[in-house]
Formats: sequence, C-alpha cells, structure tokens
Amino acid sequence: MLVGKVVGSVVSTRKSEKLVGNKFMVVELAEQMGGSGNQLVAIDNIGAGIGEFVLVATGSAARVGCDLADAPIDAAIVGIIDDGRQWMQK
Amino acid sequence: MLVGKVVGSVVSTRKSEKLVGNKFMVVELAEQMGGSGNQLVAIDNIGAGIGEFVLVATGSAARVGCDLADAPIDAAIVGIIDDGRQWMQK
Amino acid sequence: MLVGKVVGSVVSTRKSEKLVGNKFMVVELAEQMGGSGNQLVAIDNIGAGIGEFVLVATGSAARVGCDLADAPIDAAIVGIIDDGRQWMQK
Amino acid sequence: MLVGKVVGSVVSTRKSEKLVGNKFMVVELAEQMGGSGNQLVAIDNIGAGIGEFVLVATGSAARVGCDLADAPIDAAIVGIIDDGRQWMQK
Amino acid sequence: MLVGKVVGSVVSTRKSEKLVGNKFMVVELAEQMGGSGNQLVAIDNIGAGIGEFVLVATGSAARVGCDLADAPIDAAIVGIIDDGRQWMQK
Repeated sequence: MLVGKVVGSVVSTRKSEKLVGNKFMVVELAEQMGGSGNQLVAIDNIGAGIGEFVLVATGSAARVGCDLADAPIDAAIVGIIDDGRQWMQK
Repeated sequence: MLVGKVVGSVVSTRKSEKLVGNKFMVVELAEQMGGSGNQLVAIDNIGAGIGEFVLVATGSAARVGCDLADAPIDAAIVGIIDDGRQWMQK
Repeated sequence: MLVGKVVGSVVSTRKSEKLVGNKFMVVELAEQMGGSGNQLVAIDNIGAGIGEFVLVATGSAARVGCDLADAPIDAAIVGIIDDGRQWMQK
Repeated sequence: MLVGKVVGSVVSTRKSEKLVGNKFMVVELAEQMGGSGNQLVAIDNIGAGIGEFVLVATGSAARVGCDLADAPIDAAIVGIIDDGRQWMQK
Repeated sequence: MLVGKVVGSVVSTRKSEKLVGNKFMVVELAEQMGGSGNQLVAIDNIGAGIGEFVLVATGSAARVGCDLADAPIDAAIVGIIDDGRQWMQK
C-alpha cells in the first residue's frame, strides 16, 4: 500500500456504469512514497476527507478487496492514518 | 486510476482477434500523474474525444471491468472528467 | 497498452516448458511511452518484424488475452501499428 | 520480490473491515531496488522487527499468497533476510 | 519479460511456508531494461547460475506460470538467454 494525502476529487458524469456511486478522490503520494507531486485517483469507501492521510491499495487488490471485483477500479482508499504528521511534506 | 488527456488514436489492422471492434486512444497523462510527455494507449468504450480529460484504469481492471476479461487489454478509458481545466498542463 | 518498435529477439534454449514455441521479441518503447532506451521482451503471436511499431499489452492481459493463461508471460505484442511514423524517435 | 528494511509502522483505526488484525509496516526499499528514500507499506505476518531486512512481495501475490485473497492488500512481507548487511545503504 | 543478470542470492530462514524449497536469486536488470543498478529478487526453477543472463517474468505470471499460484511470488526466472553478450553493461 502507499501513503498519500487526499487533495481533491474528480467529477465524471459520463463514466462506466460499474463506477456509478463511487467517489473519486485525488491522492497525492507522500514524498517518501515516490516523490512529491505524484498523484493518483482512488475510490473511497472509507469516508476520507480533504487533507487526511490515507492508505491506498493499487492493482487488483483495489477492486477485489473492495467487493467491486467486476468494476474498472485500480486504486482504492482502504484506511485513514491516525497520525498523519510523520508523512507531512518536508 | 490516472487522469490524462486524449491526444490521438492508433490504427492497427493486423492485431489480436480479441481486440477487433475496439478503439485505441493515445492518452497523455496529466503532469501531476507522472510527468509530462508520458503517454499510454487505452481502449475507449465511453466515447471520449480528442482533447478531453479522462480517467484511465490500468492493469487487470481494464479488461475485467470492461467486460473484456479474455482480451489482451491493460488500459481503458472509464470516465470523462466534467471539468478538465484543473488538469491542464501548467 | 504501450507503443514500441521491435528491435531484436532473444533466444533461450533452457526455459520454462510452458514457453516452448513462443518467439521473444525485444521491443523498445517509444520515447512518448516512458523514455528512449527503455526496452522489454514480449512474446509475438501476430508476426511482427524487426523495425515495425507495435502495441504491447503487459501484466496479466498478456497471458490471459493470448490464450496462454498458465504460462509465465507478462508482455505480448497484440497489434502492429499501420503507420508507425508518428512514433519515430525524435 | 524486493528487498527493503523495516523502518516503522502505520496505525489506522478507520479502515476496511478486511484489514482488521493486520500489521502495517513501512518498508524502505534497498538502494539497489529502486533508489533510497523509496518506501511502501506492507502487511507483516512473519513477525519482522524494526531494522530488519525483509523480502516484500507486491501485487496480487501479496493477498493471494498470504491467504487474504479477498482483502485490499498489495504488498506483504514474506521473508526475513538472514544476513542483511549486504543491503545496507552505502 | 525483462532481461537481467544473476548477481547473487538471498537466504531467508524465517519466511512464508509457501516459499519453502524455492531459491531466491538477485537479478540486476540490463541497462536497456530500466537502468543500471536496478535489481529484483526472483525465484529460480530453471537452474540459472551467477553471471548468467536470464528472462524474468513479473507480476501474477510469476506464480501462475510457475505452478505456484498460491505462493507470494511476484518474479521468476523463466529462461536462460543463450548468448548474453548483447546485454552486457556498456
């Protein structure tokens, strides 16, 4: 999993039917997880808010592990980190 | 998922039978998603046009999530972003 | 999928039994697809020749999508691009 | 698999139900495995301690190979390296 | 698949039960396959020796293609290259 900070969201009206009902959050990976400025879009079924540090699962784990095995999803927020301070951008 | 802009398409007459009927779009990833100039080819069943910003799913999600589980597909456009302006190259 | 140019092949006499009968082509990714000089080895069931520009599928798509689900294959040439000129190294 | 050193852990109270009971360790990849400062978060069912060098499996291998096929896990510590000295940061 | 040179091995006494009986070889990827100094650890069921150039399959192909579908393995040596000279570090 990767650690990142939720920095925004994406709205897509025209999308795959299988994605309807999911929220798409923009997550900026922590500097230690691949460099600053590196972002990805993950679904969120945990309820993370903007500014929170989260654990993101990528690849098949995102859909299989979130009971969305048939959906075109390759990244999901799977946990909110209790104390995000150690991950703050230096 | 990754955010990118559709910048072109690829025509391939000699290809795997399982790919027949699909459109192959060239997507340039947003600068925030891995650097400018970084492109990939994704199938498109949503109907994205050149210049539109899209969500791309990669890996097994692209084929399993697009009802093409048996096809050699590793990237698919799965949504068109409503307001692409925030993703414009700086 | 990624676009690349076939630049050579690899011969391996001692290999997994499940790979017997496959050709291993060396594909150099187009500059727009991850930088010049970046190569990978892909099986070829399409009949691509040296110098041709091709579409390469990676990950599980390569084996599942090429009817070789049980073989240790993670990259496959799945199409030959009609007009490769736009992908020439600048 | 990749070699890395366990440098810490992550606590997440609000997380996917399927992750409950797992420990999340922060692993810094060895310099030879992708550059210094590059970290990921892996579950640990082997009992690795801070400072130990470990083998990390990524992708579907992490969940399928750890009897957690339905969990959103994409990295797991699967072995502790007997003699980690060769992997010390130069 | 990627081309690399076997440069060593890893010994792990405390490891996942499913890994028992496998050899873990350190493979340095060829310069053309992602830059010098970039290494990974792959199981070897072919019998590659130190200094030999090999084909490495990564991802699910490594376990599914090596009849170890339930093991936490994400890289495997699947062939020994007959003539490794073209891959020598320049």
